Amino acid sequence: MENWYFILELIGTAAFAVSGAMTAVQMRMDLFGAAILGMTTACGGGIIRDMILGLTPPKAFRDPVYAMVAIAVSILVFQPFVRRFLHKRQDIYDMVLQNADTAGLAIFTMTGIETAMSYTAKPNLFLAVFVGVLTGTGGGVLRDLFANRTPVIFRKYFYASASLIGAVICVVLWGELGHLPAVMAGAAVILVLRILAAHYRWHLPAAKED
Amino acid sequence: MENWYFILELIGTAAFAVSGAMTAVQMRMDLFGAAILGMTTACGGGIIRDMILGLTPPKAFRDPVYAMVAIAVSILVFQPFVRRFLHKRQDIYDMVLQNADTAGLAIFTMTGIETAMSYTAKPNLFLAVFVGVLTGTGGGVLRDLFANRTPVIFRKYFYASASLIGAVICVVLWGELGHLPAVMAGAAVILVLRILAAHYRWHLPAAKED
Amino acid sequence: MENWYFILELIGTAAFAVSGAMTAVQMRMDLFGAAILGMTTACGGGIIRDMILGLTPPKAFRDPVYAMVAIAVSILVFQPFVRRFLHKRQDIYDMVLQNADTAGLAIFTMTGIETAMSYTAKPNLFLAVFVGVLTGTGGGVLRDLFANRTPVIFRKYFYASASLIGAVICVVLWGELGHLPAVMAGAAVILVLRILAAHYRWHLPAAKED
Repeated sequence: MENWYFILELIGTAAFAVSGAMTAVQMRMDLFGAAILGMTTACGGGIIRDMILGLTPPKAFRDPVYAMVAIAVSILVFQPFVRRFLHKRQDIYDMVLQNADTAGLAIFTMTGIETAMSYTAKPNLFLAVFVGVLTGTGGGVLRDLFANRTPVIFRKYFYASASLIGAVICVVLWGELGHLPAVMAGAAVILVLRILAAHYRWHLPAAKED
Repeated sequence: MENWYFILELIGTAAFAVSGAMTAVQMRMDLFGAAILGMTTACGGGIIRDMILGLTPPKAFRDPVYAMVAIAVSILVFQPFVRRFLHKRQDIYDMVLQNADTAGLAIFTMTGIETAMSYTAKPNLFLAVFVGVLTGTGGGVLRDLFANRTPVIFRKYFYASASLIGAVICVVLWGELGHLPAVMAGAAVILVLRILAAHYRWHLPAAKED
Repeated sequence: MENWYFILELIGTAAFAVSGAMTAVQMRMDLFGAAILGMTTACGGGIIRDMILGLTPPKAFRDPVYAMVAIAVSILVFQPFVRRFLHKRQDIYDMVLQNADTAGLAIFTMTGIETAMSYTAKPNLFLAVFVGVLTGTGGGVLRDLFANRTPVIFRKYFYASASLIGAVICVVLWGELGHLPAVMAGAAVILVLRILAAHYRWHLPAAKED
């Protein structure tokens, strides 16, 4: 179990580092800016999770592996041949960014729930869902605040909604099916919802119609 | 006493949710954006308060009632007939927003002081005032950061000042008059100062005169 | 030792308060805005440090002296004759802002390392460096988020890099030379790097070349 979460967390860290570094490139930041924005996006959700749960210092500060992976991935994304390739192929750029962001969202929502659930003897389901959504969306929100734009949770149709639905499904199945199946189901729901939402351009009723 | 603070906190939560959701409508966000911004504004101050005092996980995460009230109020504000009415009557829109924000400011400044005071055996008055002002203004600051605009504490004449004066009065009277009268006096001072400030457009010396 | 850190911290607080208050003046905020932005910049890094390390409530909340110094310095910077002088002499304005920011960066990076090192029996070097950089840069990042502009760590060539290099040197020398020489060496490296970087306009490879 431990190993599973560790591997999932590394994948989520790498995925969010890609989205952070690509945002930095788009904003004409330098290599250091890309590394910082990649690391903030990748480690931000987990740091918020640990601080909410009182698990200080946060895991990202105690164990260098997360920051190292985030920095390595950010430097890779920043390489001229990668940037030039992504610059020429806007379709691939969009696809990579979309999928990296979705993978990070699904994985961190689940690690948020797992940490909240194992943190207390008598788990509070509301707390678990709330912490899951904040862990999943926190890194992207910090990325957007630092990039001086409106956070993704307010811009993208069905972003936080997907995280919330997946979190509720995971928490409901947690006691029934056991930890790993619940986490797998929750993550799968988030992935499918985000893919469908992007494909069919789902959106909720907006205030602009009036 | 307990019940008093609980009811006050629910009123403050609802008031700040109104101001968050109305900001979301103004920025053409969708229903989910309005719910998130309403909840962030409503729960943000209390979450900051609990994290500063080391009371983790914060009350807003342990007890669903605050988030539920904030979401319900935000959905109500988002309803087309409410939006259309507020759109047509700019005067009522401004009045509701101003009063909701002032009520939230007064109430959360007081709950911040109350939590800081009951948190320690030997209360530190400076800590209590500081935490009170941050609890009162924190939700609005998060709302404005997420809405990508300069926080209200830098824009509005006599906003944080009102919170600060009310906080000092409450803390000074705390030992003299007892908890409830001190809280009532502090909240009343904030309400009156904000109403007078809005009416007479009070402002402090600004740097623009040079 | 204790006294050394206390004096260093007061100098760092005053320096960052100058940079925050000067930013507020530049943005045409009023006196209260200048005091808040000065205090946020001055106390922000230390508050972030203490919250990451679980030292709640943060020192800035327990001990009024930091906020008092920050407010006094901000009010001084806001005085018309100071503002008018700085307005006329752009060269002096730039020099003061640059040096205040550099002094704050060097000092807070070091107090971050010192707190992280004395916090645990078996110090984690990665944690110490990470907390040092965040303490050094945190106040400036909050200042820029509140001023609604891209944080300095993404704008200025060799800002966070200088903090990082100084932090690594301090942590490496910590066991070899003892606390005070390590802190002095680390702070000196940050000061020298920032001065050289500003003078020779060092920058890292940026994405804009493509």
